[in-house]
Amino acid sequence: MTRLHRIDCLQYANWSEKIFRQMRAAEMDAVHVTIAYHEDFREVARNVADWNLRFQRHGDLIFHGRSGDDVRRARREGRTAIFFGFQTPAPIEADIGLVEVVHTLGARFMQLTYNNQSLLATGCYEAEDTGITRMGRQVIREMNRVGLVVDMSHSAHRSTLEAIELSERPIAVTHANPSTWHPALRNKPDEVLKALAESGGMLGFSLYPHHLRGGSDCTLAAFCEMVARTAELTGVERLGIGSDLCQDQPDSVVEWMRVGRWSREIDYGEGSAANAGFPPQPEWFRDVRGFGAIAGGLREAGFSEAEVGMILGENWLRFFDASFGPGQAPKP
Amino acid sequence: MTRLHRIDCLQYANWSEKIFRQMRAAEMDAVHVTIAYHEDFREVARNVADWNLRFQRHGDLIFHGRSGDDVRRARREGRTAIFFGFQTPAPIEADIGLVEVVHTLGARFMQLTYNNQSLLATGCYEAEDTGITRMGRQVIREMNRVGLVVDMSHSAHRSTLEAIELSERPIAVTHANPSTWHPALRNKPDEVLKALAESGGMLGFSLYPHHLRGGSDCTLAAFCEMVARTAELTGVERLGIGSDLCQDQPDSVVEWMRVGRWSREIDYGEGSAANAGFPPQPEWFRDVRGFGAIAGGLREAGFSEAEVGMILGENWLRFFDASFGPGQAPKP
Repeated sequence: MTRLHRIDCLQYANWSEKIFRQMRAAEMDAVHVTIAYHEDFREVARNVADWNLRFQRHGDLIFHGRSGDDVRRARREGRTAIFFGFQTPAPIEADIGLVEVVHTLGARFMQLTYNNQSLLATGCYEAEDTGITRMGRQVIREMNRVGLVVDMSHSAHRSTLEAIELSERPIAVTHANPSTWHPALRNKPDEVLKALAESGGMLGFSLYPHHLRGGSDCTLAAFCEMVARTAELTGVERLGIGSDLCQDQPDSVVEWMRVGRWSREIDYGEGSAANAGFPPQPEWFRDVRGFGAIAGGLREAGFSEAEVGMILGENWLRFFDASFGPGQAPKP
Repeated sequence: MTRLHRIDCLQYANWSEKIFRQMRAAEMDAVHVTIAYHEDFREVARNVADWNLRFQRHGDLIFHGRSGDDVRRARREGRTAIFFGFQTPAPIEADIGLVEVVHTLGARFMQLTYNNQSLLATGCYEAEDTGITRMGRQVIREMNRVGLVVDMSHSAHRSTLEAIELSERPIAVTHANPSTWHPALRNKPDEVLKALAESGGMLGFSLYPHHLRGGSDCTLAAFCEMVARTAELTGVERLGIGSDLCQDQPDSVVEWMRVGRWSREIDYGEGSAANAGFPPQPEWFRDVRGFGAIAGGLREAGFSEAEVGMILGENWLRFFDASFGPGQAPKP
């Protein structure tokens, strides 16, 4: 039997040959990597250049992915396709013209916010959520036109619901879990998950401990049981993995993610003063090879082999196929 | 008989629907347009965004060209392929990683200098020419690797000869004439033209009055006679047109080209205080439809129909085919 495609739709590791070899050991056909948190356009270009050097140095293991067909090519060639995404809209600055420019550079996902209010929408840590801004409406249209996926993982709920409604193409929550299971600010209520699924959008389950019931001690069985309960709500075809794996990163990186340059004080985000750094990963998902464990856990939770394949990559592949090419938009 | 391909390998017009319709009237399959003089990387991204809007608004007339095959596609579809280039290396700033990034954005030609010393080489207006710099050698290698053509139109002669020698792929002088015909600083001596041709490089003849014997009064016959004399030196297969047409531009633009932000005083470049603005074009080349007149003039000067086709586009097409794809380079 042909192996199904495997995709992790969110990682931000301290990239190294070791990690790329683990991707190959886990038979990952594609990984969506974050290339910007708070970087402006010029800084993102530097991050692209850093990736270009990795593609050159490790061309036997990885290459730059731009389309669903690149996931199939990765499988044929025994390599992993790396897809770019941003966790804030900072790279497009206040210039809607940069939406198409960053798509040309390879960006395929862009969060409308990280944790704070952005020019486009409200982040999940703000006290009030005013929904999609005037510029946000324009940028969603432009993202739809060029094939840059709206990602609302870190956005507040009203903003997320409005993005689902306004976007003419299905959107994604690449890395979050249901808040009914674990009531983190970053997790999503059933109302959001249902609207996401009904519009053809995708949810990527997160393996980041702050998003897990029991944190670092969350068991594989508990995680997979949660996936099964979510499938009852959304249908299995809307589900994938976006592990949020931050492998081998020093704690200075989680501080950068949370604080960027927007505050002169420390913001602990999902952590706390007592638990400021990266929390330890669950022992069954220390690195991407944990996909094998999840496959087993999902079978235990009652999923068929085909359903396991859908969750571990086939659903994302269908979404990639539909999302990264040009869409329709009226002439400007 | 199938019409041969027509390419103008340098223009910097005040772009408008009128000009794009003139490109179609002239049956231009491709035009290489300058998208940067002194702009840094961020500003070039804005210029790319401006072009993206033109491609969207005038998609029936023009589209973004990236390869020789796009020239053939343009011919099939009755549109003109627009290729991007820079007249200084300012867009890559001091970051060699940006060479590949700007190629991804569509840049296909980059001058190592405009009129002044750059980080890479010496411009034709400096008192001393110290040749290709340390960074210049690295950047030429990187341009060769990714498929960004070295253009030495505005560079000094030693720098140009060294670029021809150092580049592992043929280079271009997209817009200049022989200095034996008209001794402008911007024109090239026979030694340079011979070395360029022998290495497989291309010369694009300029129609900019300061590069023409007799300036704005230069006759079509004199221009075509000059082309014929150059062909005796270089062979006809190394010759094309790079008109340097700056149609419909206000004089503020020629000041921007010459002065950028590098001087607080006016620099008149090829002009003078008494003749500071754009000089009038010769009456036989007021816009790109002048390609028709040149075709006639070249026949009068003794070129065969096939040779006329080579000069008006087929030579550039062969060069595009060979130049814009990835080259070979050792692993970093």
